[in-house]
Amino acid sequence: MTVTRDMLDASPSRAPLGVAEVAAAIDECLNCLQACISDADADLAERDIEEVRTCIALCLNCADVCDFTARVLSRPAQWDDFVVDRLLQACVRTCTVCADECAKHADHHRHCAICEKACRACIQACSALLAAEAVEELEKLGGA
Amino acid sequence: MTVTRDMLDASPSRAPLGVAEVAAAIDECLNCLQACISDADADLAERDIEEVRTCIALCLNCADVCDFTARVLSRPAQWDDFVVDRLLQACVRTCTVCADECAKHADHHRHCAICEKACRACIQACSALLAAEAVEELEKLGGA
Amino acid sequence: MTVTRDMLDASPSRAPLGVAEVAAAIDECLNCLQACISDADADLAERDIEEVRTCIALCLNCADVCDFTARVLSRPAQWDDFVVDRLLQACVRTCTVCADECAKHADHHRHCAICEKACRACIQACSALLAAEAVEELEKLGGA
Amino acid sequence: MTVTRDMLDASPSRAPLGVAEVAAAIDECLNCLQACISDADADLAERDIEEVRTCIALCLNCADVCDFTARVLSRPAQWDDFVVDRLLQACVRTCTVCADECAKHADHHRHCAICEKACRACIQACSALLAAEAVEELEKLGGA
Repeated sequence: MTVTRDMLDASPSRAPLGVAEVAAAIDECLNCLQACISDADADLAERDIEEVRTCIALCLNCADVCDFTARVLSRPAQWDDFVVDRLLQACVRTCTVCADECAKHADHHRHCAICEKACRACIQACSALLAAEAVEELEKLGGA
Repeated sequence: MTVTRDMLDASPSRAPLGVAEVAAAIDECLNCLQACISDADADLAERDIEEVRTCIALCLNCADVCDFTARVLSRPAQWDDFVVDRLLQACVRTCTVCADECAKHADHHRHCAICEKACRACIQACSALLAAEAVEELEKLGGA
Repeated sequence: MTVTRDMLDASPSRAPLGVAEVAAAIDECLNCLQACISDADADLAERDIEEVRTCIALCLNCADVCDFTARVLSRPAQWDDFVVDRLLQACVRTCTVCADECAKHADHHRHCAICEKACRACIQACSALLAAEAVEELEKLGGA
Repeated sequence: MTVTRDMLDASPSRAPLGVAEVAAAIDECLNCLQACISDADADLAERDIEEVRTCIALCLNCADVCDFTARVLSRPAQWDDFVVDRLLQACVRTCTVCADECAKHADHHRHCAICEKACRACIQACSALLAAEAVEELEKLGGA
């Protein structure tokens, strides 16, 4: 169990998107960061390294985008809708490309199968935030 | 639930320390990273910012050391006992100093209380790895 | 002098944008990362910490976004136009907000004045990449 | 040219080791971070990927240790001799192992040759800080 949700609840600042949704996205980003770093490392020790070179490169990008998205989402004090939106878009895209590549190796490398699942969970959590953001935008327009 | 333990189990490489212990340390490092980033952000929005400036500075260092330790522990393929040992030492120290500072503000800032707990859990998990490392060293000497 | 340009030239992969421009953006991102981390740390030790709390929070986000952008730009092998575009947008925005805030303190805190300059240089280098990207898009359309 | 030295000079806090030496170590760490990330990426696109798999794994660790060492050295406000010492030791070790591996591929991969040089420069700058630290320790003992 992580303390993410508790930390966000205890902060004097409030992210404009739902706390539960932001906490879920942070946790999935950190989980995906770990999975991608371990998957790249595992791939590097496999006999068929030729086949997984794309997978390694994509995992490295995915690990970093997840790390930095988790960091920015953990800071509601100076929340910036534009920055959060662009990071979430980058995160969903990187995780999608990485998951699709991992899927190609999932039947013979269990570490790729697990990594794919971690990426998919991260995509879902970040997409939920992007959707919440779109609703918020619409409400602002409706209220104007 | 994180996939850390599953990822380590699925890797063709094996860390010389116990898999369960390494997985626990990674998870606590990532949890502590999140707590420290959120705690620094929450402190920055508090009225008594003068009182928590040391806490903010320590949280920033602690977040980075935990991030970095989690990354290195997630890569068994080229595991280096010396590097792991120095990082775990740095991590235990940073978390201890950070936890002790958070403790001073724990009664009036719930985010500091939670962050302290996250630091203490990380200290325990990393100290367990340092102890396992010491036992491993002794066994090597005994076997020689 | 950094080795960034030499490293990009020596890679078997080629980023679709100009090598000189990508190298410049990486170097400015790393410079801005350092400036923002040091500026937040310097602010934390100032007597007027109340006045610079926003500056600290913005510097922390800016440091992380710059770190992350430098990392992704350093990996041409699996270059993804969409991800690079979103990151550059996030980077230009974070640096702009950070520079504007630093500017408010530049006359009494030299570290804020230097940090503002580092942010402005990073904005320029990343904006140049965004412009190159737009030209490339137009050429693709024209060639179709 | 980086702003590192100017930022450290402008800070109200002073690192116990020499400012010029700390600034040099930060700059070499950031340069080595970039080189290692680009070298791993370049290796992933080479035909002899089987031969450079160790090089890739070592570069990934080296990039991270350099990133986080640069971050911690950039924060004199709550400087901790113990943490700095352990990070510098880990950094010198990681850079040494990485440089030695890069050297094996330096004659046929120019990116490995450049990366080796970046690692060696980082080793030198961090070793100079470790030596300064040892002198400082001795002076404390002599003064007691």
